[in-house]
Amino acid sequence: MEPAPPRFANWREFEPLQLGPILDHALEAFGENGFHGTTVRDLARRVGVTVPALYYHHENKEAVLVTLLDTAVRDLIERALAAVGEGGDDPVRRFTNFVEAIVLNSTHRAPQSALDSELRHVSPQNRRNYAATRKRLELMALDLVDDGVERGVFAVDDIAESVRALLGMCQSIARWFRLGGPLTPDQVTARYTVIALRIVGYRAAPDPPSGSSPVRRN
Amino acid sequence: MEPAPPRFANWREFEPLQLGPILDHALEAFGENGFHGTTVRDLARRVGVTVPALYYHHENKEAVLVTLLDTAVRDLIERALAAVGEGGDDPVRRFTNFVEAIVLNSTHRAPQSALDSELRHVSPQNRRNYAATRKRLELMALDLVDDGVERGVFAVDDIAESVRALLGMCQSIARWFRLGGPLTPDQVTARYTVIALRIVGYRAAPDPPSGSSPVRRN
Repeated sequence: MEPAPPRFANWREFEPLQLGPILDHALEAFGENGFHGTTVRDLARRVGVTVPALYYHHENKEAVLVTLLDTAVRDLIERALAAVGEGGDDPVRRFTNFVEAIVLNSTHRAPQSALDSELRHVSPQNRRNYAATRKRLELMALDLVDDGVERGVFAVDDIAESVRALLGMCQSIARWFRLGGPLTPDQVTARYTVIALRIVGYRAAPDPPSGSSPVRRN
Repeated sequence: MEPAPPRFANWREFEPLQLGPILDHALEAFGENGFHGTTVRDLARRVGVTVPALYYHHENKEAVLVTLLDTAVRDLIERALAAVGEGGDDPVRRFTNFVEAIVLNSTHRAPQSALDSELRHVSPQNRRNYAATRKRLELMALDLVDDGVERGVFAVDDIAESVRALLGMCQSIARWFRLGGPLTPDQVTARYTVIALRIVGYRAAPDPPSGSSPVRRN
């Protein structure tokens, strides 16, 4: 499955979301009251249309949530691909660009990213589809860390678990971050990039192996 | 405010939860259908009591969620206190025991820990109370990292952000972990302890000063 060519002139730029009135209002409603706390009637009222008009566009409430989740993860994957591509052949740059894309997304798009917690309310089939798409991000991260380890710039024993921890850490940002709060997306990104480099045991230049310390930088 | 003396013979042991029939069923129902997706009627049916009988024990559905959240975070705080206390005067041991307590809790008590995502559905007053209790965990973590930095065993620039990242990473475990899955709580704990030590820039023994490290005392 060949990914579509990245459609971002600049993967660091987050234009206002323009999902259309139904999805925009659904994002807001699910964020405020949760998926189960939002009825199709509530949604129609927010959008200012009738319930049948809503059903004309979306099969049901779950289809609206699935569209939101799917749009968000595909957008993030394309950004991540663009970010990694921009890193050229530098394994550290590729990795930090990847982390940057994820954290910028968790901050600029916090409400969409937080929607991930509603995933458990969708059908097993839809959950599997979403998981399969999202898996691509995990595979990209595994590749990037693997590559850094092979080239001697990262030192990490347990790549799979470190990647999961890293992605979990970035995802949890959406739970507390608010645009307009004390930190800007760029500030959060700068800090998490440093932490991500620690997690993968970044060393500025390859060292001779050393048995003593589990973490060694410089 | 003096914390109560830890009531755990062994903070690493997680007995089956015995919250009583209403809270046990509420935990299950909120996990399956979310807070808003669970009606008081659903809950009464699961427990096998009438709706008025349920209201006899709990003011409303929110009070049930708040009790669950509060019980979980207080139990975790007591475990963390016991864990840190057991570390004696060794700053690394105190820190790793703390991380161990958190990760054991995120795994053994994954459904309770995951309930945290329902927090946005409780009233501002209840949310503030919960946040104030939970803040104690963050303050403990800040103290532990601070102490390690002062004693020259940890090296980290941005203690506040690293602690938040660390706690976010541990919390996100509850989103994927299942008892009986491929990893045991002890395995996850061992791996996350290593990752946590990386985040705080653990070094096995104080090194001679070097211009490159961001924080250095001793």
